[in-house]
Amino acid sequence: MSRAARALIFDLDGTLVDTVYAHVFAWQRAFAELGLPIDGWRIHRRIGMSGGLFARAAAREIGRPLSLTEVETIQRRHGEIYREILPERHPLPGAVELLGDLRAEGIVHGIATSGRRPEIDASLEALGVGEETVVVERGDVERAKPEPDLFLTCAERLGVTASDSYVIGDAVWDLLAARRAGMLSVGLLSGGYGEDELARGGAFRVYRDPAELRQSLDELGVRE
Amino acid sequence: MSRAARALIFDLDGTLVDTVYAHVFAWQRAFAELGLPIDGWRIHRRIGMSGGLFARAAAREIGRPLSLTEVETIQRRHGEIYREILPERHPLPGAVELLGDLRAEGIVHGIATSGRRPEIDASLEALGVGEETVVVERGDVERAKPEPDLFLTCAERLGVTASDSYVIGDAVWDLLAARRAGMLSVGLLSGGYGEDELARGGAFRVYRDPAELRQSLDELGVRE
Repeated sequence: MSRAARALIFDLDGTLVDTVYAHVFAWQRAFAELGLPIDGWRIHRRIGMSGGLFARAAAREIGRPLSLTEVETIQRRHGEIYREILPERHPLPGAVELLGDLRAEGIVHGIATSGRRPEIDASLEALGVGEETVVVERGDVERAKPEPDLFLTCAERLGVTASDSYVIGDAVWDLLAARRAGMLSVGLLSGGYGEDELARGGAFRVYRDPAELRQSLDELGVRE
Repeated sequence: MSRAARALIFDLDGTLVDTVYAHVFAWQRAFAELGLPIDGWRIHRRIGMSGGLFARAAAREIGRPLSLTEVETIQRRHGEIYREILPERHPLPGAVELLGDLRAEGIVHGIATSGRRPEIDASLEALGVGEETVVVERGDVERAKPEPDLFLTCAERLGVTASDSYVIGDAVWDLLAARRAGMLSVGLLSGGYGEDELARGGAFRVYRDPAELRQSLDELGVRE
Protein backbone atom coordinates (compact mmCIF):
# COMPACT_ATOMS: atom_id res chain seq x y z
CA MET A 1 0.00 0.00 0.00
CA SER A 2 1.41 3.38 -0.98
CA ARG A 3 1.82 5.95 1.78
CA ALA A 4 1.95 8.80 -0.69
CA ALA A 5 -0.81 11.34 -0.76
CA ARG A 6 -2.81 11.06 -3.95
CA ALA A 7 -4.29 14.50 -4.14
CA LEU A 8 -3.45 18.15 -3.51
CA ILE A 9 -6.18 20.46 -2.28
CA PHE A 10 -5.36 24.15 -2.64
CA ASP A 11 -6.60 27.21 -0.89
CA LEU A 12 -7.04 30.14 -3.31
CA ASP A 13 -6.39 33.65 -1.86
CA GLY A 14 -2.78 34.03 -0.73
CA THR A 15 -1.96 30.51 -1.91
CA LEU A 16 -2.47 30.72 -5.67
CA VAL A 17 -3.37 34.41 -6.21
CA ASP A 18 -1.81 37.48 -4.64
CA THR A 19 -4.97 38.96 -3.15
CA VAL A 20 -4.47 38.95 0.63
CA TYR A 21 -3.28 42.53 1.06
CA ALA A 22 -6.08 43.91 -1.12
CA HIS A 23 -8.58 41.92 0.98
CA VAL A 24 -7.09 43.26 4.22
CA PHE A 25 -7.21 46.82 3.02
CA ALA A 26 -10.76 46.47 1.61
CA TRP A 27 -12.03 45.07 4.95
CA GLN A 28 -10.26 47.81 6.83
CA ARG A 29 -11.89 50.50 4.70
CA ALA A 30 -15.32 48.84 4.86
CA PHE A 31 -15.20 48.80 8.68
CA ALA A 32 -13.78 52.32 8.88
CA GLU A 33 -16.62 53.67 6.73
CA LEU A 34 -19.04 52.64 9.49
CA GLY A 35 -16.84 54.30 12.10
CA LEU A 36 -15.46 50.94 13.23
CA PRO A 37 -11.67 50.99 13.01
CA ILE A 38 -9.99 47.56 13.25
CA ASP A 39 -6.24 47.10 13.21
CA GLY A 40 -4.88 45.85 9.91
CA TRP A 41 -2.85 43.02 11.45
CA ARG A 42 -5.93 41.62 13.20
CA ILE A 43 -7.81 41.54 9.91
CA HIS A 44 -4.81 39.99 8.18
CA ARG A 45 -4.64 37.13 10.67
CA ARG A 46 -8.32 36.36 10.01
CA ILE A 47 -8.34 36.37 6.20
CA GLY A 48 -9.47 32.97 4.98
CA MET A 49 -11.76 32.16 7.87
CA SER A 50 -15.50 32.09 7.31
CA GLY A 51 -17.22 35.47 6.95
CA GLY A 52 -19.53 34.72 9.87
CA LEU A 53 -16.69 33.94 12.25
CA PHE A 54 -14.83 36.96 10.97
CA ALA A 55 -17.77 39.25 11.75
CA ARG A 56 -18.10 37.75 15.23
CA ALA A 57 -14.40 38.21 15.95
CA ALA A 58 -14.54 41.77 14.64
CA ALA A 59 -17.53 42.51 16.86
CA ARG A 60 -15.60 41.28 19.88
CA GLU A 61 -12.81 43.69 19.11
CA ILE A 62 -15.18 46.55 18.49
CA GLY A 63 -16.76 45.75 21.82
CA ARG A 64 -20.39 45.30 20.77
CA PRO A 65 -22.36 42.94 18.51
CA LEU A 66 -22.78 44.03 14.91
CA SER A 67 -26.34 44.24 13.58
CA LEU A 68 -27.31 42.13 10.60
CA THR A 69 -27.54 45.32 8.53
CA GLU A 70 -24.02 46.35 9.56
CA VAL A 71 -22.62 42.93 8.67
CA GLU A 72 -24.34 43.03 5.28
CA THR A 73 -23.15 46.59 4.61
CA ILE A 74 -19.57 45.72 5.55
CA GLN A 75 -19.59 42.60 3.38
CA ARG A 76 -21.06 44.47 0.41
CA ARG A 77 -18.63 47.37 0.76
CA HIS A 78 -15.71 44.96 1.14
CA GLY A 79 -16.63 43.36 -2.17
CA GLU A 80 -17.07 46.72 -3.90
CA ILE A 81 -13.83 48.20 -2.58
CA TYR A 82 -11.93 44.99 -3.33
CA ARG A 83 -13.04 44.92 -6.97
CA GLU A 84 -12.39 48.66 -7.29
CA ILE A 85 -8.83 48.62 -5.93
CA LEU A 86 -7.84 45.28 -7.48
CA PRO A 87 -9.51 45.04 -10.88
CA GLU A 88 -6.94 42.50 -12.08
CA ARG A 89 -5.72 39.41 -10.22
CA HIS A 90 -2.09 38.35 -10.15
CA PRO A 91 -1.30 34.66 -9.83
CA LEU A 92 1.50 34.10 -7.32
CA PRO A 93 4.87 33.10 -8.85
CA GLY A 94 4.73 29.56 -10.20
CA ALA A 95 0.99 29.08 -9.58
CA VAL A 96 -0.03 28.83 -13.24
CA GLU A 97 2.91 26.55 -14.04
CA LEU A 98 2.28 24.36 -11.01
CA LEU A 99 -1.36 23.79 -11.91
CA GLY A 100 -0.29 23.13 -15.50
CA ASP A 101 2.19 20.49 -14.33
CA LEU A 102 -0.42 18.80 -12.17
CA ARG A 103 -2.84 18.62 -15.09
CA ALA A 104 -0.15 17.39 -17.49
CA GLU A 105 1.04 14.71 -15.08
CA GLY A 106 -2.43 13.66 -14.06
CA ILE A 107 -1.87 14.48 -10.39
CA VAL A 108 -5.27 14.77 -8.76
CA HIS A 109 -5.92 18.25 -7.38
CA GLY A 110 -8.65 20.70 -6.54
CA ILE A 111 -9.31 24.11 -5.00
CA ALA A 112 -11.26 24.72 -1.79
CA THR A 113 -11.84 28.35 -0.79
CA SER A 114 -13.81 30.35 1.75
CA GLY A 115 -14.41 32.80 -1.11
CA ARG A 116 -17.55 32.85 -3.18
CA ARG A 117 -18.52 32.89 -6.80
CA PRO A 118 -18.70 35.27 -8.61
CA GLU A 119 -16.01 37.04 -6.52
CA ILE A 120 -13.47 34.28 -7.12
CA ASP A 121 -14.12 33.93 -10.86
CA ALA A 122 -11.50 36.49 -11.89
CA SER A 123 -8.89 34.68 -9.78
CA LEU A 124 -9.71 31.31 -11.34
CA GLU A 125 -9.56 32.85 -14.79
CA ALA A 126 -6.17 34.45 -14.08
CA LEU A 127 -4.92 31.01 -13.02
CA GLY A 128 -6.23 29.37 -16.19
CA VAL A 129 -8.43 27.08 -14.12
CA GLY A 130 -11.34 25.81 -16.19
CA GLU A 131 -14.31 23.49 -15.92
CA GLU A 132 -12.07 20.45 -15.63
CA THR A 133 -10.83 21.47 -12.18
CA VAL A 134 -12.80 20.70 -9.02
CA VAL A 135 -13.47 23.98 -7.19
CA VAL A 136 -15.34 23.95 -3.89
CA GLU A 137 -16.42 27.40 -2.72
CA ARG A 138 -18.24 28.94 0.23
CA GLY A 139 -21.67 28.38 -1.28
CA ASP A 140 -21.08 24.63 -1.61
CA VAL A 141 -20.82 23.93 2.10
CA GLU A 142 -22.58 24.90 5.27
CA ARG A 143 -19.52 25.98 7.25
CA ALA A 144 -16.26 27.46 5.98
CA LYS A 145 -12.75 27.25 7.44
CA PRO A 146 -11.59 26.51 10.07
CA GLU A 147 -14.35 23.88 9.81
CA PRO A 148 -13.15 20.98 7.64
CA ASP A 149 -16.20 20.96 5.31
CA LEU A 150 -14.56 22.65 2.32
CA PHE A 151 -11.62 20.23 2.28
CA LEU A 152 -13.74 17.14 2.95
CA THR A 153 -16.15 18.06 0.16
CA CYS A 154 -13.25 18.66 -2.21
CA ALA A 155 -11.69 15.26 -1.40
CA GLU A 156 -15.06 13.60 -1.92
CA ARG A 157 -15.49 15.20 -5.33
CA LEU A 158 -11.94 14.22 -6.24
CA GLY A 159 -12.68 10.64 -5.24
CA VAL A 160 -9.89 10.44 -2.63
CA THR A 161 -9.90 9.86 1.11
CA ALA A 162 -8.87 12.51 3.62
CA SER A 163 -5.71 10.60 4.50
CA ASP A 164 -4.72 10.58 0.83
CA SER A 165 -5.00 14.39 0.59
CA TYR A 166 -2.58 17.22 1.26
CA VAL A 167 -3.88 20.69 1.92
CA ILE A 168 -1.80 23.60 0.58
CA GLY A 169 -2.60 26.91 2.27
CA ASP A 170 -1.19 30.20 3.50
CA ALA A 171 -3.32 30.76 6.61
CA VAL A 172 -3.54 29.02 9.95
CA TRP A 173 -7.25 28.51 9.16
CA ASP A 174 -6.29 26.24 6.29
CA LEU A 175 -3.97 24.28 8.54
CA LEU A 176 -6.49 23.98 11.34
CA ALA A 177 -9.24 22.89 8.93
CA ALA A 178 -6.82 20.36 7.41
CA ARG A 179 -6.09 18.85 10.81
CA ARG A 180 -9.78 18.60 11.56
CA ALA A 181 -10.28 16.92 8.18
CA GLY A 182 -7.53 14.41 8.96
CA MET A 183 -5.31 15.76 6.17
CA LEU A 184 -1.63 16.68 6.21
CA SER A 185 -0.87 20.25 5.26
CA VAL A 186 1.79 22.36 3.61
CA GLY A 187 2.14 26.07 4.34
CA LEU A 188 3.06 28.89 1.95
CA LEU A 189 4.53 32.22 3.10
CA SER A 190 2.83 34.04 0.23
CA GLY A 191 -0.14 35.06 2.37
CA GLY A 192 2.08 36.94 4.80
CA TYR A 193 2.12 34.63 7.82
CA GLY A 194 5.49 33.86 9.34
CA GLU A 195 7.12 30.46 8.91
CA ASP A 196 6.82 29.54 12.59
CA GLU A 197 3.15 30.45 12.70
CA LEU A 198 2.51 28.01 9.87
CA ALA A 199 4.71 25.29 11.36
CA ARG A 200 3.02 25.68 14.72
CA GLY A 201 -0.34 25.59 12.94
CA GLY A 202 0.49 22.10 11.75
CA ALA A 203 2.21 22.50 8.37
CA PHE A 204 4.80 19.76 7.99
CA ARG A 205 6.55 21.75 5.27
CA VAL A 206 6.62 25.49 4.59
CA TYR A 207 7.54 26.91 1.18
CA ARG A 208 7.81 30.50 0.03
CA ASP A 209 5.23 30.35 -2.76
CA PRO A 210 3.81 28.04 -5.45
CA ALA A 211 7.09 28.30 -7.40
CA GLU A 212 9.06 26.75 -4.56
CA LEU A 213 6.36 24.17 -3.97
CA ARG A 214 6.53 23.23 -7.63
CA GLN A 215 10.27 22.61 -7.37
CA SER A 216 9.69 20.50 -4.28
CA LEU A 217 6.81 18.30 -5.43
CA ASP A 218 8.93 15.19 -5.12
CA GLU A 219 9.34 15.86 -1.38
CA LEU A 220 5.60 15.43 -1.00
CA GLY A 221 5.43 12.03 -2.60
CA VAL A 222 2.55 12.93 -4.90
CA ARG A 223 4.36 11.49 -7.89
CA GLU A 224 4.34 7.71 -8.31
CA MET B 1 24.41 52.15 38.91
CA SER B 2 20.90 51.48 37.62
CA ARG B 3 20.55 48.81 34.97
CA ALA B 4 17.17 50.11 33.83
CA ALA B 5 16.82 51.65 30.40
CA ARG B 6 16.20 55.35 30.68
CA ALA B 7 14.57 56.01 27.33
CA LEU B 8 12.12 54.47 24.89
CA ILE B 9 12.66 55.03 21.17
CA PHE B 10 9.62 54.25 19.05
CA ASP B 11 9.23 53.34 15.43
CA LEU B 12 6.14 55.01 13.90
CA ASP B 13 4.34 53.02 11.13
CA GLY B 14 2.93 49.76 12.48
CA THR B 15 4.18 50.57 15.97
CA LEU B 16 2.16 53.67 16.88
CA VAL B 17 -0.12 54.15 13.85
CA ASP B 18 -2.02 51.51 11.87
CA THR B 19 -0.59 52.28 8.45
CA VAL B 20 1.32 49.16 7.37
CA TYR B 21 -1.36 47.57 5.23
CA ALA B 22 -2.12 50.82 3.41
CA HIS B 23 1.62 51.19 2.72
CA VAL B 24 1.83 47.62 1.38
CA PHE B 25 -1.13 48.10 -0.88
CA ALA B 26 0.08 51.52 -2.12
CA TRP B 27 3.51 50.10 -3.01
CA GLN B 28 1.90 47.14 -4.73
CA ARG B 29 -0.26 49.43 -6.88
CA ALA B 30 2.63 51.79 -7.64
CA PHE B 31 4.76 48.90 -8.93
CA ALA B 32 1.84 47.32 -10.81
CA GLU B 33 1.16 50.59 -12.63
CA LEU B 34 4.60 50.28 -14.24
CA GLY B 35 3.88 46.68 -15.17
CA LEU B 36 6.06 45.40 -12.32
CA PRO B 37 4.00 43.07 -10.13
CA ILE B 38 5.57 42.26 -6.74
CA ASP B 39 3.96 39.89 -4.25
CA GLY B 40 2.24 41.60 -1.35
CA TRP B 41 3.96 39.53 1.31
CA ARG B 42 7.40 40.46 -0.02
CA ILE B 43 6.53 44.14 0.18
CA HIS B 44 5.08 43.67 3.67
CA ARG B 45 8.30 42.13 4.96
CA ARG B 46 10.25 45.14 3.70
CA ILE B 47 8.10 47.95 5.07
CA GLY B 48 10.20 50.08 7.40
CA MET B 49 13.52 49.55 5.65
CA SER B 50 15.10 52.45 3.81
CA GLY B 51 13.54 53.38 0.47
CA GLY B 52 16.83 52.86 -1.34
CA LEU B 53 17.28 49.32 -0.01
CA PHE B 54 13.63 48.62 -0.75
CA ALA B 55 14.03 49.66 -4.40
CA ARG B 56 17.15 47.53 -4.74
CA ALA B 57 15.43 44.49 -3.25
CA ALA B 58 12.43 45.04 -5.50
CA ALA B 59 14.67 45.27 -8.54
CA ARG B 60 16.26 41.95 -7.62
CA GLU B 61 12.85 40.34 -7.55
CA ILE B 62 11.79 41.95 -10.79
CA GLY B 63 15.01 40.64 -12.29
CA ARG B 64 16.50 43.86 -13.64
CA PRO B 65 17.74 47.16 -12.21
CA LEU B 66 15.20 49.96 -11.98
CA SER B 67 16.06 53.24 -13.66
CA LEU B 68 16.25 56.39 -11.56
CA THR B 69 13.10 57.61 -13.30
CA GLU B 70 11.26 54.40 -12.45
CA VAL B 71 12.30 54.62 -8.79
CA GLU B 72 11.17 58.24 -8.63
CA THR B 73 7.86 57.44 -10.33
CA ILE B 74 7.18 54.53 -8.00
CA GLN B 75 8.01 56.59 -4.91
CA ARG B 76 5.85 59.48 -6.06
CA ARG B 77 2.91 57.23 -6.95
CA HIS B 78 3.26 55.36 -3.65
CA GLY B 79 2.90 58.64 -1.79
CA GLU B 80 -0.07 59.74 -3.89
CA ILE B 81 -1.90 56.41 -3.62
CA TYR B 82 -1.17 56.18 0.10
CA ARG B 83 -2.63 59.60 0.84
CA GLU B 84 -5.59 58.89 -1.45
CA ILE B 85 -6.58 55.55 0.11
CA LEU B 86 -5.76 56.49 3.70
CA PRO B 87 -6.70 60.13 4.17
CA GLU B 88 -6.98 59.69 7.94
CA ARG B 89 -4.51 57.94 10.26
CA HIS B 90 -5.59 55.66 13.06
CA PRO B 91 -3.38 55.42 16.14
CA LEU B 92 -2.98 51.80 17.23
CA PRO B 93 -4.85 50.85 20.41
CA GLY B 94 -3.23 52.43 23.45
CA ALA B 95 -0.72 54.50 21.49
CA VAL B 96 -2.12 57.92 22.41
CA GLU B 97 -2.55 56.87 26.05
CA LEU B 98 0.94 55.36 26.22
CA LEU B 99 2.59 58.52 24.91
CA GLY B 100 0.45 60.56 27.32
CA ASP B 101 1.63 58.43 30.25
CA LEU B 102 5.26 58.80 29.25
CA ARG B 103 4.91 62.57 29.07
CA ALA B 104 3.03 62.72 32.37
CA GLU B 105 5.58 60.54 34.16
CA GLY B 106 8.57 62.22 32.60
CA ILE B 107 9.85 59.02 31.00
CA VAL B 108 12.27 60.02 28.27
CA HIS B 109 11.08 58.93 24.82
CA GLY B 110 11.31 59.77 21.15
CA ILE B 111 10.26 58.60 17.68
CA ALA B 112 12.67 57.42 14.96
CA THR B 113 11.14 56.57 11.59
CA SER B 114 12.24 55.69 8.07
CA GLY B 115 9.31 57.86 6.94
CA ARG B 116 9.68 61.46 5.88
CA ARG B 117 8.06 64.78 6.62
CA PRO B 118 5.56 65.89 5.42
CA GLU B 119 4.25 62.33 4.87
CA ILE B 120 4.47 61.48 8.56
CA ASP B 121 2.90 64.73 9.80
CA ALA B 122 -0.67 63.39 9.76
CA SER B 123 0.40 60.37 11.81
CA LEU B 124 2.15 62.53 14.41
CA GLU B 125 -0.90 64.77 14.61
CA ALA B 126 -3.23 61.79 15.07
CA LEU B 127 -1.00 60.68 17.95
CA GLY B 128 -1.07 64.09 19.58
CA VAL B 129 2.70 64.36 19.28
CA GLY B 130 3.81 67.97 19.33
CA GLU B 131 6.96 70.06 19.28
CA GLU B 132 8.02 68.78 22.70
CA THR B 133 8.69 65.27 21.39
CA VAL B 134 11.96 64.35 19.71
CA VAL B 135 11.18 62.97 16.23
CA VAL B 136 14.00 61.76 13.99
CA GLU B 137 12.93 61.14 10.40
CA ARG B 138 14.51 59.94 7.18
CA GLY B 139 15.71 63.39 6.20
CA ASP B 140 17.71 63.77 9.43
CA VAL B 141 20.16 60.96 8.75
CA GLU B 142 22.20 59.63 5.90
CA ARG B 143 21.07 56.03 6.10
CA ALA B 144 17.74 54.61 7.29
CA LYS B 145 16.97 51.22 8.90
CA PRO B 146 18.37 48.64 9.16
CA GLU B 147 21.31 51.00 9.64
CA PRO B 148 21.41 52.24 13.25
CA ASP B 149 21.62 55.96 12.39
CA LEU B 150 17.99 56.86 13.15
CA PHE B 151 18.09 55.30 16.61
CA LEU B 152 21.55 56.63 17.47
CA THR B 153 20.57 60.15 16.43
CA CYS B 154 17.39 59.89 18.49
CA ALA B 155 19.31 58.75 21.59
CA GLU B 156 21.77 61.57 21.12
CA ARG B 157 18.99 64.15 20.92
CA LEU B 158 17.36 62.63 23.99
CA GLY B 159 20.66 62.85 25.84
CA VAL B 160 20.89 59.14 26.64
CA THR B 161 23.40 56.46 25.72
CA ALA B 162 22.56 53.55 23.42
CA SER B 163 22.75 51.09 26.30
CA ASP B 164 20.18 53.13 28.21
CA SER B 165 17.68 52.98 25.31
CA TYR B 166 15.00 50.51 24.33
CA VAL B 167 13.75 50.39 20.78
CA ILE B 168 10.04 49.60 20.28
CA GLY B 169 9.24 48.40 16.77
CA ASP B 170 7.04 46.11 14.67
CA ALA B 171 9.51 45.14 11.93
CA VAL B 172 12.66 43.06 11.88
CA TRP B 173 14.40 46.16 10.45
CA ASP B 174 13.77 47.97 13.71
CA LEU B 175 15.17 45.06 15.66
CA LEU B 176 18.22 44.68 13.44
CA ALA B 177 18.92 48.42 13.58
CA ALA B 178 18.52 48.31 17.36
CA ARG B 179 21.09 45.53 17.67
CA ARG B 180 23.51 47.44 15.50
CA ALA B 181 22.94 50.49 17.67
CA GLY B 182 23.66 48.45 20.80
CA MET B 183 20.10 48.86 22.07
CA LEU B 184 17.70 46.29 23.46
CA SER B 185 14.42 45.99 21.58
CA VAL B 186 10.78 45.16 22.13
CA GLY B 187 8.58 43.87 19.30
CA LEU B 188 4.93 44.65 18.61
CA LEU B 189 2.66 42.36 16.56
CA SER B 190 0.68 45.36 15.29
CA GLY B 191 2.70 45.57 12.07
CA GLY B 192 1.73 42.05 11.03
CA TYR B 193 4.95 40.13 11.69
CA GLY B 194 4.64 36.87 13.62
CA GLU B 195 5.82 36.60 17.21
CA ASP B 196 8.66 34.21 16.38
CA GLU B 197 9.95 36.43 13.59
CA LEU B 198 10.27 39.27 16.08
CA ALA B 199 11.80 37.11 18.81
CA ARG B 200 14.30 35.68 16.33
CA GLY B 201 15.00 39.23 15.15
CA GLY B 202 16.22 40.05 18.62
CA ALA B 203 13.18 41.35 20.54
CA PHE B 204 13.48 40.30 24.16
CA ARG B 205 9.76 40.88 24.67
CA VAL B 206 6.89 40.82 22.18
CA TYR B 207 3.57 42.53 22.89
CA ARG B 208 0.43 42.72 20.80
CA ASP B 209 0.21 46.50 20.47
CA PRO B 210 0.91 49.74 22.35
CA ALA B 211 -2.00 48.98 24.71
CA GLU B 212 -0.35 45.79 25.93
CA LEU B 213 3.03 47.50 26.13
CA ARG B 214 1.46 50.23 28.25
CA GLN B 215 0.16 47.64 30.72
CA SER B 216 3.60 46.05 30.83
CA LEU B 217 5.81 49.10 31.27
CA ASP B 218 6.99 47.89 34.67
CA GLU B 219 8.46 44.78 33.03
CA LEU B 220 10.81 47.03 31.09
CA GLY B 221 12.24 48.81 34.08
CA VAL B 222 11.78 52.28 32.65
CA ARG B 223 10.13 53.48 35.83
CA GLU B 224 12.39 54.33 38.75
